[in-house]
Amino acid sequence: MKTIIISIGNEITSGHVINSNAVWMAKALEPHGITPDRILALRDDEKTLAVEIRSALKKYELVLITGGLGPTHDDVTKPVLVKVFKTKLVRDKKTLAMVKTCFDKPGVDMPAINEGQADVPKGAKILPNKWGTAPGLFFKTDSCLLFALPGVPYEMRNLMKNEVLPLIKKRAKGSAVARVLLRTMGVGESALSEKINKIGYLGDDLEMAYLPMMGMVDIRLTAKKRATLKRAEKKIMKVIAPYYYGRDDDTPEKVIGSILVEKKLKLASAESCTGGQFAVKITSVPGASKYFLEGVVTYSNDAKMARLRVREATLIKHGAVSSQVAKEMAQGICKTAGADVGVSCTGVAGPTGGTKEKPVGLVYIGFCFKGRVEVKEYKFGEDGRARNQERTVRAMIKWLLKELSAI
Amino acid sequence: MKTIIISIGNEITSGHVINSNAVWMAKALEPHGITPDRILALRDDEKTLAVEIRSALKKYELVLITGGLGPTHDDVTKPVLVKVFKTKLVRDKKTLAMVKTCFDKPGVDMPAINEGQADVPKGAKILPNKWGTAPGLFFKTDSCLLFALPGVPYEMRNLMKNEVLPLIKKRAKGSAVARVLLRTMGVGESALSEKINKIGYLGDDLEMAYLPMMGMVDIRLTAKKRATLKRAEKKIMKVIAPYYYGRDDDTPEKVIGSILVEKKLKLASAESCTGGQFAVKITSVPGASKYFLEGVVTYSNDAKMARLRVREATLIKHGAVSSQVAKEMAQGICKTAGADVGVSCTGVAGPTGGTKEKPVGLVYIGFCFKGRVEVKEYKFGEDGRARNQERTVRAMIKWLLKELSAI
Repeated sequence: MKTIIISIGNEITSGHVINSNAVWMAKALEPHGITPDRILALRDDEKTLAVEIRSALKKYELVLITGGLGPTHDDVTKPVLVKVFKTKLVRDKKTLAMVKTCFDKPGVDMPAINEGQADVPKGAKILPNKWGTAPGLFFKTDSCLLFALPGVPYEMRNLMKNEVLPLIKKRAKGSAVARVLLRTMGVGESALSEKINKIGYLGDDLEMAYLPMMGMVDIRLTAKKRATLKRAEKKIMKVIAPYYYGRDDDTPEKVIGSILVEKKLKLASAESCTGGQFAVKITSVPGASKYFLEGVVTYSNDAKMARLRVREATLIKHGAVSSQVAKEMAQGICKTAGADVGVSCTGVAGPTGGTKEKPVGLVYIGFCFKGRVEVKEYKFGEDGRARNQERTVRAMIKWLLKELSAI
Repeated sequence: MKTIIISIGNEITSGHVINSNAVWMAKALEPHGITPDRILALRDDEKTLAVEIRSALKKYELVLITGGLGPTHDDVTKPVLVKVFKTKLVRDKKTLAMVKTCFDKPGVDMPAINEGQADVPKGAKILPNKWGTAPGLFFKTDSCLLFALPGVPYEMRNLMKNEVLPLIKKRAKGSAVARVLLRTMGVGESALSEKINKIGYLGDDLEMAYLPMMGMVDIRLTAKKRATLKRAEKKIMKVIAPYYYGRDDDTPEKVIGSILVEKKLKLASAESCTGGQFAVKITSVPGASKYFLEGVVTYSNDAKMARLRVREATLIKHGAVSSQVAKEMAQGICKTAGADVGVSCTGVAGPTGGTKEKPVGLVYIGFCFKGRVEVKEYKFGEDGRARNQERTVRAMIKWLLKELSAI
């Protein structure tokens, strides 16, 4: 199905809100063999939106619109749909009843403006919104299905799952393609592509894309025929084996989790400059409580001493950002938490706090496994606090995954 | 300047990568009085891209393209620009030298494919990329400036800052508009808009947008004249005062930080189900080390007892997810960290681990200030692990901000 996603809202075009809805929708369409041809974000402007919707109805088989369905003056989607489909608004009693239940709490009065949520274009199928106030709208022409959904992510997602996807499924005629994501780390995009190019022919209907992110490269393979995909994957796996760590939804932290479970090892972390981001990554995996005992974010020197038994003498002699402190943190978290594996970091995230000897971006990472302890030094430079924190966590995760894979 | 951002890449249209580049660019243009009219994401398809670039050159004064400049076969931007501008590729010696320095490390050979990075369309101005291999490209027509930048966020951002924005600045004729973001919490979008609508006339050239996010609503005001903005803001502030917590870049965690600094109070946190996300939010603010002593992520019962002095009897009698444990965690973190303010949480994030008595989404949040301790119970429901964690952190931040504002 030729598909376009149209996201409405000044807050999106102005960069104040990230268009996470479009990403989520595209991913939700994938299992149905649908890949959007384009994602278009537009301002809250009736005229432009009308032009784009009219054009989309001609060019696409599936049009998904989010946003602009709310009750305030900058919500333009409903009036535009009324114009495009030459219809009028009618008050829908069922919707009104649903909207009212949203405000059915003691001490809460429904602002009158919300009654307008129940005014819907005549001729549209109403997709009841049990998760908010604005219902979804469904229009069908000879060649196109058009859905208009609220921009609130939680409401949009539930409407997609419960109303839109079942309706699309009926129409998408099993055009699903075979795909796989092969995930690598420790090799650059161009070096990887050189290795793969040397293989030569991989199949007529094989599409390949490289998705590099922070020193890790995913390779996405897509093919119409499952057999082509399998053959290509086998050939590619041979040349990428040293860098391969997982496939599809295997994130590094998931793979770390499954190794820890398999080897019956317990993990704990001691962070400083990353403020807990390592623990967040690890605990983003459901079931992390099976192998993650605890994490400490020891920002102050006192906390480093009290929580991790870092020696005062070490802090005085070498400073909090030092190889020695990273080492004692890693050892300390293993001991105090009773963990088999401990990781630590200490560094100058920035933007301030740097000195000539210890500039912004200087980071030490410690790794401790059953008594063996090692430290690595990184100089990430002055690219900003968030980036230095992100790089530090990435380095911790990469190192941990590498060490665990070797056990 | 009429502006379009075009993001190239199957990984974006397919939803595998979030289009963070477009958001960043839009925000970077704002201080120059430029708001993009549309953001368009397209697949790696030469034909479509050529059509869109030709059309954009006619309709827009500024065209910003990201992605598709790399050395692999799915990078289509350069060949398309060559066609659109009816030119050819020539090898640029300076660029080649720069590309080579990227691989100038012991033991690293430059993959030959990277030499192609130095092939640039004749007639384009080369924007040297000191942060990666693919240079930016700049084309100028009578009515339009077109920039093509690499899709790697870090490279794109540096090229924007150092090359693109200075060139745009020359052309953007001080059309900057006055804007302000008023940030509120504890009130819904429609209730807020009812209050503001009652004010009546706010100025001819005043634009207003509501940006709701997880129980917090930002109001963006834009006006051509600063005086209009000031007048409108004053009127609006009167009706939103009980909900207002900050403006523009004042995030809740920044405001929390400035109150803590002002009142000379020290904060520490004890998390369970959020895995450290609260600590991450707090430490995302530069200078957080001034008031944030430490955070602990006590996932296991042992850690809760050892780190926070939660009593074994409490854990046995009430379970780890209970009001009593949240209370002892908040008290415990204050005591063990020597903090004035302690916050805690314990809950069932899901998707598994729920029981009839303690379902997924049940969360307890504790707050302790100089001995006074309180606990709140939340039932977030089964909307997924990430959402439950996010809601918990948001609730902690909101409560903390409210309490601190009242001190």
